[in-house]
Amino acid sequence: MGITQSIKRVEQQNPRGCATVFGTRTRRWEEFTARVARLAGGLQSLGVGRGDRVAILGLNSDRYLEYYAAVPWAGAVAVPLNTRWSVPENIYALNDSGATILLIDDEFASMASPILAGARAVREVIYMGESSAPAGMTGYEALIEGSAPIPDAGRTGPDLAGIFYTGGTTGFPKGVMLSHGSLWASAAAAATFVPRIPDAVVLHAAPMFHLAAFGGVMGALLTGAQHVIIPRFDPKLVLESIERNQVTNLALVPTMIRMLVTHSNLPNTNLSSLRYLAYGASPMPEALLREAMRALHGCQFFQAYGQTELSPVATILAPEYHTFEGLKAGKLASAGRVSPCCEVHVVDPAGCEVARRTVGEIRVRGLNAMLGYWNKPAETAATLRDGWVHTGDAGWMDEEGFLYIVDRVKDMIISGGENVYTAEVENACVSHPGVSQCAVIGIPNDDWGEAVHAIVILKNGQQVTAAELIAHCHSLIAGYKCPRSIEFRTEPLPLSGVGKVLKRELRKPHWEGRSRQVN
Amino acid sequence: MGITQSIKRVEQQNPRGCATVFGTRTRRWEEFTARVARLAGGLQSLGVGRGDRVAILGLNSDRYLEYYAAVPWAGAVAVPLNTRWSVPENIYALNDSGATILLIDDEFASMASPILAGARAVREVIYMGESSAPAGMTGYEALIEGSAPIPDAGRTGPDLAGIFYTGGTTGFPKGVMLSHGSLWASAAAAATFVPRIPDAVVLHAAPMFHLAAFGGVMGALLTGAQHVIIPRFDPKLVLESIERNQVTNLALVPTMIRMLVTHSNLPNTNLSSLRYLAYGASPMPEALLREAMRALHGCQFFQAYGQTELSPVATILAPEYHTFEGLKAGKLASAGRVSPCCEVHVVDPAGCEVARRTVGEIRVRGLNAMLGYWNKPAETAATLRDGWVHTGDAGWMDEEGFLYIVDRVKDMIISGGENVYTAEVENACVSHPGVSQCAVIGIPNDDWGEAVHAIVILKNGQQVTAAELIAHCHSLIAGYKCPRSIEFRTEPLPLSGVGKVLKRELRKPHWEGRSRQVN
Repeated sequence: MGITQSIKRVEQQNPRGCATVFGTRTRRWEEFTARVARLAGGLQSLGVGRGDRVAILGLNSDRYLEYYAAVPWAGAVAVPLNTRWSVPENIYALNDSGATILLIDDEFASMASPILAGARAVREVIYMGESSAPAGMTGYEALIEGSAPIPDAGRTGPDLAGIFYTGGTTGFPKGVMLSHGSLWASAAAAATFVPRIPDAVVLHAAPMFHLAAFGGVMGALLTGAQHVIIPRFDPKLVLESIERNQVTNLALVPTMIRMLVTHSNLPNTNLSSLRYLAYGASPMPEALLREAMRALHGCQFFQAYGQTELSPVATILAPEYHTFEGLKAGKLASAGRVSPCCEVHVVDPAGCEVARRTVGEIRVRGLNAMLGYWNKPAETAATLRDGWVHTGDAGWMDEEGFLYIVDRVKDMIISGGENVYTAEVENACVSHPGVSQCAVIGIPNDDWGEAVHAIVILKNGQQVTAAELIAHCHSLIAGYKCPRSIEFRTEPLPLSGVGKVLKRELRKPHWEGRSRQVN
Repeated sequence: MGITQSIKRVEQQNPRGCATVFGTRTRRWEEFTARVARLAGGLQSLGVGRGDRVAILGLNSDRYLEYYAAVPWAGAVAVPLNTRWSVPENIYALNDSGATILLIDDEFASMASPILAGARAVREVIYMGESSAPAGMTGYEALIEGSAPIPDAGRTGPDLAGIFYTGGTTGFPKGVMLSHGSLWASAAAAATFVPRIPDAVVLHAAPMFHLAAFGGVMGALLTGAQHVIIPRFDPKLVLESIERNQVTNLALVPTMIRMLVTHSNLPNTNLSSLRYLAYGASPMPEALLREAMRALHGCQFFQAYGQTELSPVATILAPEYHTFEGLKAGKLASAGRVSPCCEVHVVDPAGCEVARRTVGEIRVRGLNAMLGYWNKPAETAATLRDGWVHTGDAGWMDEEGFLYIVDRVKDMIISGGENVYTAEVENACVSHPGVSQCAVIGIPNDDWGEAVHAIVILKNGQQVTAAELIAHCHSLIAGYKCPRSIEFRTEPLPLSGVGKVLKRELRKPHWEGRSRQVN
């Protein structure tokens, strides 16, 4: 099933039901579908044909969802741009994808001129903001009003759905090609773990350009849920939206969960409608999870691990393993078990499966695997071998098939010949009651090659010394894994668009003029 | 995900867990997988290669499940034969599919010689019974013991998984080609409606050659459930197996449910483990459903509608609509809503969608659609048009997307120019307290073309006259729909392998020497 068929199915069952809520604006499914068919007609009138790329640069909105539907309806391919990108990065992705149309909202309208100066193939800019269209741009509402609906182009199965740029944490963005079938398979497999709520209301708070949020959109389309959309993550607005719209399902990354559960409005917000919180996209420290489960009791937790290349889900930690007691305790530290849409192996550099509890690279094969990287045959060949997506994540598997992620292979520290997995060190640091956040990197050291270095943000009003924190780590993990140096800071850690800590940014000042050996 | 990848995934997570229970024989997943890899090696040593067809004729068993796994493991295609077939029908399917290997069990071993006399391509017969292999056959256990394991051939996605013969109710069998991807999509979409039971135990009682049961096998592989298998449906054995093995999930056709809930052992059997009863494959009279829901209270009901050509599920009636009260009442008469893996339309003969509540032919398009009929390009072109599977079922859809099946298009009666849908007449008859079963057919009539004729089996000890029953129908449905004639009988109705009433058998004596106009 492609995105459009999923939408038509929901409309067939619930035409008068609420499809989208964005601020005070709501649309029914019959209205939503009619608008999408006209927007697709508008795209076609602007010359968009089968397989053409249509890009978008905007915060979350109901129109972002209409875009995701109208582009395949017109037979085209979505190119959602990262809202954290600079002008040159946007130009790079537009040129790389060869997008001919760019949709842009109020937040980014001022970037249109400099972007267009460099993005050669873009012929037309559609202004999807809330005011009247700036000169030289086509108005989004005018395009819908002035266009006749067209029949759905019927993109599905192996047809290319979108080019999703990734690589924010490791360098130049690569365009991940995902098919309608792979997006459907990932979402359907995950949905088998989510108790079906007949009148579900899903809140989209994470950025919709990113697969972590778009995977949730696909899941919501499968179940026919109502979509509540806020422009960007803001803990206060999330709390208000849950209470006002009786939100049942929410998906966030750990950084967002931390901001939510520590927000001062939390105790005064009625969150009783909330049934299900999915999280993923970056490691979840156990201390934070404990706090979140306490703060959001009554809500079931669900972890998904994966990456854009996997549409995006590879493993799932089901609600019953979110416990600190009994037979199922201890699985919380894992990313869960393999989703029913794929196979997962942990392999050595030669590609052979390693024994259980041995760290290796995680590789994944299945219905959710990407088609490849757009325009990048060498990178595709390096990552996608014999149908296996090599994730670049290091991890190990236990006897019951639970997968434990220890690091990005590239972030792993080799210190005195020993592998140190930064996630383990970060967990040790964050378990100290005074620590709010921590990122661990390798820095150059003449004796050991790399030394373990921790960058730490303390909780408000807390005082912890480096010596105290190092001693705390020594009580939990082996000596060679403990930080040799600690840098306390108050400013936030640099984050990618979806809230992952950008370790290459943290490493940069330490490695200036030196080259780091990557495994 | 192909069948083999699903099995390897379960084995990875639960190697020591119980895979199959058959009588007193149990196997763990690690053992099951090892046997499958060796059986695949055995098939390979017998010359089975990529895409070759391997047939099976047998009652249900743990070995039947091993067969379904080992055939794709060896790269081959399954051809499960209908256990109700005569020798000529088996010969037809073997010759049509070009199967080179035939697995056969004790029940059918005596048919091997006459079948082989006509099945030209079969080179080898594997005896999968419980005794020693008859002369000229290869022993199943000896083949496993004597063969080295081979690597999984990795069949998945669009690769052909099996040729499933259908057409038992309408004439010559056609080989439906289903891919691994379509079987997975149907099962995954249905699984999103089934509350996940972490330690599920599934009982396979319906014949495993049929998609109604094999769809359940696929679903159980997705969730990692334990498989309890009985040779054939027998209400006493079903009740014993549920109690003994703590079965949680069961799938039956309505005829079987009737035998189960009226069985004298039911009140004395502990069925408290049973959480979920799926039914489908033929219409469920409301009176029987009421009785079953009363008898199996505490168990959730789930209806799936589809056909072999749809891998097999197209629509799903979720548990919450199994109610006789409140807002959701009345949906019970439907086959539910469209599964998330497909689109469903109700169309007129020209292929245009009809208005809601108007009867037309049901057509289905989606990830669950068959690849086509094996060796039958004309039949494929007639059924599969623009990706739509034309089901041959007549039905209508309500405003909320619930689909109501009224008849097979070919069974529909045209009487005096009016369409009469036999399911509606049958429901009216069966709602009479004295009636156990009813089948309605059209018989030749010089005035009206066809006349409505009912064949009725009364409940034990009940006395009902034709006039009483016709009067009962008049109180429920329009006069032209009521039976003109009623035939009471005590012998069972002729059934297909999966328990569907064979109406062409019932019509035959009435139409001898005349030709019936088929719509």
